[in-house]
Amino acid sequence: MRLGTFEWMKSVNRSIIINKIRTDAPISRAQIAKETKITPPTVSSNVKELIALGIVEETDYGTSSGGRKPKMLMLTENKYFVIGVDAGSQKIQASLSNLKGEILNRYHCSLEGVHTNELFIEALMTSIDTISSFLKPSQDILGIGIAMHGVVDPLKGEATFAPNLGLTNIPIKEMLYEHFQVPIYVENDARAMAMGEAWFDTTNVPQSLVTLNIGRGVGAGIIVDGKLFYGKDYLAGEIGHMTINMNGDICDCGNRGCLQTLTSGKTIASKAKERIPSTHFERFNDQITGDTVFQLACQGNEEAIKIFHEIGHAIGIGLINLIHMFNPERIVLGGGVMDASQYILPIVKQIIQEKGLTGKAKNSHVEISRWGHDATLKGAIAIVLSHVFDDVAEDELSNE
Amino acid sequence: MRLGTFEWMKSVNRSIIINKIRTDAPISRAQIAKETKITPPTVSSNVKELIALGIVEETDYGTSSGGRKPKMLMLTENKYFVIGVDAGSQKIQASLSNLKGEILNRYHCSLEGVHTNELFIEALMTSIDTISSFLKPSQDILGIGIAMHGVVDPLKGEATFAPNLGLTNIPIKEMLYEHFQVPIYVENDARAMAMGEAWFDTTNVPQSLVTLNIGRGVGAGIIVDGKLFYGKDYLAGEIGHMTINMNGDICDCGNRGCLQTLTSGKTIASKAKERIPSTHFERFNDQITGDTVFQLACQGNEEAIKIFHEIGHAIGIGLINLIHMFNPERIVLGGGVMDASQYILPIVKQIIQEKGLTGKAKNSHVEISRWGHDATLKGAIAIVLSHVFDDVAEDELSNE
Repeated sequence: MRLGTFEWMKSVNRSIIINKIRTDAPISRAQIAKETKITPPTVSSNVKELIALGIVEETDYGTSSGGRKPKMLMLTENKYFVIGVDAGSQKIQASLSNLKGEILNRYHCSLEGVHTNELFIEALMTSIDTISSFLKPSQDILGIGIAMHGVVDPLKGEATFAPNLGLTNIPIKEMLYEHFQVPIYVENDARAMAMGEAWFDTTNVPQSLVTLNIGRGVGAGIIVDGKLFYGKDYLAGEIGHMTINMNGDICDCGNRGCLQTLTSGKTIASKAKERIPSTHFERFNDQITGDTVFQLACQGNEEAIKIFHEIGHAIGIGLINLIHMFNPERIVLGGGVMDASQYILPIVKQIIQEKGLTGKAKNSHVEISRWGHDATLKGAIAIVLSHVFDDVAEDELSNE
Repeated sequence: MRLGTFEWMKSVNRSIIINKIRTDAPISRAQIAKETKITPPTVSSNVKELIALGIVEETDYGTSSGGRKPKMLMLTENKYFVIGVDAGSQKIQASLSNLKGEILNRYHCSLEGVHTNELFIEALMTSIDTISSFLKPSQDILGIGIAMHGVVDPLKGEATFAPNLGLTNIPIKEMLYEHFQVPIYVENDARAMAMGEAWFDTTNVPQSLVTLNIGRGVGAGIIVDGKLFYGKDYLAGEIGHMTINMNGDICDCGNRGCLQTLTSGKTIASKAKERIPSTHFERFNDQITGDTVFQLACQGNEEAIKIFHEIGHAIGIGLINLIHMFNPERIVLGGGVMDASQYILPIVKQIIQEKGLTGKAKNSHVEISRWGHDATLKGAIAIVLSHVFDDVAEDELSNE
């Protein structure tokens, strides 16, 4: 694997031009000049360099308004690549994508038996090595993005706490950089997901957006003014531990009535254990999990459906708190629990409609991630691409 | 009243220089040049103009390191002024301040019997007229800041909803501008308070800060990246209606277990009515209010103290939710209920210490506003000053 050439985007004009090509391709030089207000000669000279570097390529001729048909530009598809990794609590998924963020190849492996930092890093490296073996010698990796579950310090690139693996202080960035020598970005999974939702939405870029990753745990990624919002100690977005029932059941964190204790996959399973006869789970080899409860619901089991309605009620209350505090343009829900969105989402919307303080609050935009299980993986890719295409601002998260 | 000359700050250099004088006065031209990296001739020419306009004045000679003693600069105190108004639910307080934000004169009037928009505007105008009568003909008002309770649209300068007065859509900015012909800024009280805390803290400027105004209602003002955070529909900060007990009592807003139902002055009074014999309130002319319960607490009444501890418990849970979502650098508490901070604050800190997810969360910085009852008034002044001293960025909230 070779390190991609990074010097090409260290100019504001070039950054504007390449972003324009990214969002509006296929686009002509003339259109770029018109819409970015950069002079045609500057556009031309920058595009020339971008083509020489293999970042941009010419495609079919555009439509002409009389004279010669203009040559249309788009991001190149076969020179520079990005690796995105979704490092969950049970498995690692790695992907290879082009500059457009399209996923070309995938690899995944289980994290069963991974109980030391060294084994975890080894699993990560194997995944990345495997996925990069799809590249030809002439093709370059521009960076590797790791969307990691649990508490993450993106500046150090460290997984501070990975609760389900029982691991702490895994120096992911340091170890991977030593091995691969390309820029490494490590981010919390929910924040990566937020970055993905914002980055890939080129037509309707939200100024503020919150994504919720609802699975084993519940985390939020927050975008403010188009940027990830971290809070003072990288703690912002710990929505799973928002108290919504101060006299409720005790959560893993020791507090009472956290959103997570009312909405996680574990809660779905334990509600089902209490309320659905175990015989119903025989066809699933007696596995009572969020997923098997969902399958029962799909088969019309009313108690299973009711459980998902209760989950929707709790998520609705969590979101109404979020709306009254943050008032984001858009809320996107993802994670394993949202596989049951057909039962959950209508209730979530109903609660928000009932409890919103104003008409606008009641009609807050809530949707399911369009990428389903790939939401985090898309986020891992986006955290790399957002740095690759970034303007000349100081890039403090990079190793460069 | 005359409109102050605004042209003087429409240059980035001048804005940097005047802000340096504001925060570091008394300061010499040489120090300004050194610390701002603006060339000495540019500093000199700008300072010359600022002195001619009466914005800056020379003060006692500074200490010399050999040669001639340098002339020290500070903001002028007797030429330009700002009016700040705290428009609460029961009374209006108006203040006249100098460019440093020091309060020089005050006026207040009751809002009893004010039940139409016209009467409210009249009360505002009377207050402003009265306070500006302290000025000499040669002295100018640079702007008027109104910190208004309830829901405010700062762009329109309108009080959208003032719940305790039962008024809606009061066009404050429009009416006041027509009358006074100076820039008018209207902001929600909790947001103004946040602006005041950030603006006047010149030594330790927080990047993120949340203020809570806990009185009849409970509102929050949020600063992110040094700027007020509004949310998509100016709804951000409605922390009073954060559900912390989803099965709790019904709030004014119709929802259950809102923070406000557990912490407001009204709650204190109603808890006292239930649990403290009415004979204890005879010495207060049978008035059972948050304030008289506080006075009982000060006299050692254990039940009264216990009520404030319960309030502290609920505020603590609201703040821990805020910390886990926003993770701000600093939280500042104000409002009438915080008069009883001696009973409330220790419990708030204890809850945060108990329930924080991480060591840093447990040690989140929480304090009482250093200005006590003037916190909102200082905020009203700050919303004007922040525009006056602002750089050349488009000033969309101004009428200019």
